[in-house]
Amino acid sequence: MAPDIEQHVHRTAAILSIGDELALGETVNTNSAWIAQRLTNCGVKPVTHVTVDDSLNSIAAIMRELASRVDVVVSSGGLGPTDDDLTRQALAQALGEELVEDEQSLASLQRRFQAIGRELLAANRVQTLRPVSGRCLKNPHGTAPGIAATWREGELKCDFFCLPGPPREMQPMLERLVLPALKPSGDRVIRLRTLHVFGLPESGIPKLLGGLMERGRNPVVGTSAQTGFVTCKIRFEGDPAKADATLDAAEKQVRAALDPFVFGVDDETLASVVSDLLRTRGESVTTAESCTGGLVSMMLTERPGSSDVFVGGWATYSNEFKHGSLDVPLELIEKHGAVSEHVARAMAKGALARSAESEKPANHAISITGVAGPGGGTEEKPVGTVWIARATRGDETEARLFRFSDQRDAIRERSALAALGMLRLKLIGRTDVKLLWEQ
Amino acid sequence: MAPDIEQHVHRTAAILSIGDELALGETVNTNSAWIAQRLTNCGVKPVTHVTVDDSLNSIAAIMRELASRVDVVVSSGGLGPTDDDLTRQALAQALGEELVEDEQSLASLQRRFQAIGRELLAANRVQTLRPVSGRCLKNPHGTAPGIAATWREGELKCDFFCLPGPPREMQPMLERLVLPALKPSGDRVIRLRTLHVFGLPESGIPKLLGGLMERGRNPVVGTSAQTGFVTCKIRFEGDPAKADATLDAAEKQVRAALDPFVFGVDDETLASVVSDLLRTRGESVTTAESCTGGLVSMMLTERPGSSDVFVGGWATYSNEFKHGSLDVPLELIEKHGAVSEHVARAMAKGALARSAESEKPANHAISITGVAGPGGGTEEKPVGTVWIARATRGDETEARLFRFSDQRDAIRERSALAALGMLRLKLIGRTDVKLLWEQ
Repeated sequence: MAPDIEQHVHRTAAILSIGDELALGETVNTNSAWIAQRLTNCGVKPVTHVTVDDSLNSIAAIMRELASRVDVVVSSGGLGPTDDDLTRQALAQALGEELVEDEQSLASLQRRFQAIGRELLAANRVQTLRPVSGRCLKNPHGTAPGIAATWREGELKCDFFCLPGPPREMQPMLERLVLPALKPSGDRVIRLRTLHVFGLPESGIPKLLGGLMERGRNPVVGTSAQTGFVTCKIRFEGDPAKADATLDAAEKQVRAALDPFVFGVDDETLASVVSDLLRTRGESVTTAESCTGGLVSMMLTERPGSSDVFVGGWATYSNEFKHGSLDVPLELIEKHGAVSEHVARAMAKGALARSAESEKPANHAISITGVAGPGGGTEEKPVGTVWIARATRGDETEARLFRFSDQRDAIRERSALAALGMLRLKLIGRTDVKLLWEQ
Repeated sequence: MAPDIEQHVHRTAAILSIGDELALGETVNTNSAWIAQRLTNCGVKPVTHVTVDDSLNSIAAIMRELASRVDVVVSSGGLGPTDDDLTRQALAQALGEELVEDEQSLASLQRRFQAIGRELLAANRVQTLRPVSGRCLKNPHGTAPGIAATWREGELKCDFFCLPGPPREMQPMLERLVLPALKPSGDRVIRLRTLHVFGLPESGIPKLLGGLMERGRNPVVGTSAQTGFVTCKIRFEGDPAKADATLDAAEKQVRAALDPFVFGVDDETLASVVSDLLRTRGESVTTAESCTGGLVSMMLTERPGSSDVFVGGWATYSNEFKHGSLDVPLELIEKHGAVSEHVARAMAKGALARSAESEKPANHAISITGVAGPGGGTEEKPVGTVWIARATRGDETEARLFRFSDQRDAIRERSALAALGMLRLKLIGRTDVKLLWEQ
C-alpha cells in the first residue's frame, strides 16, 4: 500500500449521499448508482455507498470513517442554502478546520444574481463557504458550488469531492471537475457498454444471446427492463488496453443476435435515433397524438436542432379537436370509436395533409389513439388498447394495434416509443418486423 | 437509554444493501428507499443506508459497525445460491457464531424442489444455513429464506433481519415477517406532508417561513428544489394522536406565509391543480408550444379524464408551422424573431381562434416560445430567454418574459411550469403576482 499512498492512487471509492429525504426513503437515490458507474468506468472501484440524514455529527463521523478506508469520497447533497444543508460544516468538522468564504465563488454568485436581476441573500452567501484547505468547484447549473478537499491522518490520505444533490447540477460537475482529477491505478478497469432494445421482451433475450450471458464470462452481458424498452449491459473487467476492442466485438455479436431490435447505444434514445435517420435522408415528421397528449413531440424535441426533422404536431385530445384540427370526420369517430384503426389512419393522413399548409410539409406522420386508462376500458377495447398509424408522403399508410398491460403513465410511454419504433422500422426498411405488444 | 435497551425498543434503523451490481452502480437501489419508507411509517427511524459489494469482510465489518449504532438492521441481497452470496457467512462472522443447516428450511426446500421435479443441489442446501442463534424467515416467492438474529455486546443489542434482494421476494417478507416483529416506541411516529411551491426561489423561503424551518423544531419544515419548483416538507415526529392536527396547523402557516405560491400538496402537480381549477369553472385550455414541443399538453394529460379541460394543442416547432397551423404572420416572425412578445401573443391568440374551429372552443390558450439552447442564443436573447403568453376568450391577453439560467431540459421544464403557473394566477385572480425568473 505504501507506494500507493505516496502517489495517492485512487483505487477505491465511497459514495456518500446526504439528506433526510433519502434516509427516510422519501426519495429514491439515483445519484449513487450514476456516480458509481462513472467511477467504475474510469477505473476507480466504488466499494461502498452510504446515505445519512441531515445531522451534522453523523455526516462528519461517516466522512472520517470512510476517509480511513478508501482513497476518494464523492458526496452529493447538503450544499443548499438552508439550515438543513450541512455538508460544508460536516466536511470542515471531519477535517478539523474552520470554514471561510470563498472569494471567487462569492464573486461569480454575485454575477449570476445580477444577470437574472435577483438580490443576493445571506442564505446564498452561506453557499460560498469552504474549509480553509479546500477549494470550491464551479457549478454552472446552480447556486451551490461544490467543494474539494484532502483528509490526512498519519500515512492515510483521502480526497473528498462534495457535489450538490440535484442530478442536473451534480452530473456535469462530476464529469468535468471530478473524473479528470482522479488518478486510477491503470492496471485493471471495469467498462460498461449499454445497448438499447425496443420490440423484444426481456425474457426472450437470453435465448437469443446464448453464452454471452453466462456468469463468470468476460465480457458478460446482463439485461434490465426499462419502461417500454430493455437495456443490454456488456461488462468488461481487465486490461484497459483490451477493453474497447473486446466491447466492440461483443456489441457486434449482440446487435447481430437481436437484429433489428437494437436501436441505440449508451445515451442514444429512440427519438434521437429516429431524428438522425430522418436527418440523413433530409426528411421530416409530424405527429398527431391523442392518449399520449404530446409525449412523442416532446421526445422528438428533447435534443437541440430538431426543427429540421420535426416541423410540429398536434395533441388532439378531444374528438372535436381531432375533427377541427385534423379533419377526422366525426361520423368516423361515432361509427368506429376514437380508438380504432380508421381514426388512427385518418389522424395520420390529416396531419400529413395539414402540415402541407405550411411551406415545410412533413414527409411522415405518426398518430396515436388509445385507452391509457385507468378508466375508459371496455370488453372489446380494454385499457392498454392503442392504435398507432404511420403515413408517408407518396407511400402507403400502415396502422398497427398494440395492447399494453400496465399503468397509465407506462402505457403512454410505451405508446410513444412504439410510434417512434414503427417510424424507425420504416426508415430502415424493415416494416415486415412485428414489435412486442403488437396484436 | 438504559430502559430502552432493557425492553429493546426499536427507535433507529439502518438499511444494508449487499451486491457488486449495486456497489458498481449497474443497478439503481430501490430496495433501500422502499424499506426506509415502511420503517418510517411504523415509527422506526432509518438513520443510515449502506451499500457494500460482495466481500465477506466488508459485509461483516459494516454489520458490526451498524449494530453498535442502531436498534435494528434490515439487509437485502446476498442470500442467493452462488459463491458471491455471502450474507449468511458475514452475519455469522459479525455475531461470532458458526453456521448450521436449518432443518425446517431444508425440509421445505426439498418439498419445493420435489414439486417442480428438480433435484436439490449442494448450492441450494447452502441457502438453508443460518447462524446458531438465528432463525430462518420463510420466503414464499423464492428459494432463499431470510435470517433473523440478535447481536449483543455488553449493554448493546441490535436485531438483524436479512432478506433476499429481488423486490418481489423481499417486499412481502418485510411486510409479513419483519414489520410485525418490530417494537417501535409507540409514543413516537414520523409523519410527512409535502407542499409544492412555484414562483419563489428556494433561498427566499426561509426568510418567509421564519421559525418554521429552525432545526429541532417539531414539526419542522424543510425545503428541496425540484426542476422548476420547490417542495416544502413538513415533518412531524412525536405522539401519533397529535400528528394530523399539528400538520394541518403547520400547513396553514406555510400556505399563508408563501401565499399565493403554494399550488399543491403531496401528489398534486401544477398541471393537475390547473386542471381542477378549470374543471370547477367548466372551462378549458389549449396550448401552442414551440421550445417545449408538447411538454405542457403532455403534463395536462398525465392524469385521466383531462379531455373536459384540455381540448388539444399544437407543438409549433418550425416557423412555417407556426404560420401554417396558427396563422402567425411570417412577417411578424421575420421582424421580431420567433422568440418575441409579438409572436408569443400571436401564437396564443391563433390557438384560441383555431380551437374555435372545433365544436368545443377553449376558454384559455397558453403559448411558449423561447431559446432552450444549448445553441441559438444571442447577445440580446441569450439561451434561457422565453416568452410566454396567455389569451382568454373575451378577456385581455398577457405576455411575460422569463429568463431561465440552466440547461435545455430544465429550461423546457421550467417554461412549461411557468406557462401553467401564469394560467393558475389568472384562475385564482392573482395576475398581479410576479413569478420567479420573470424579467
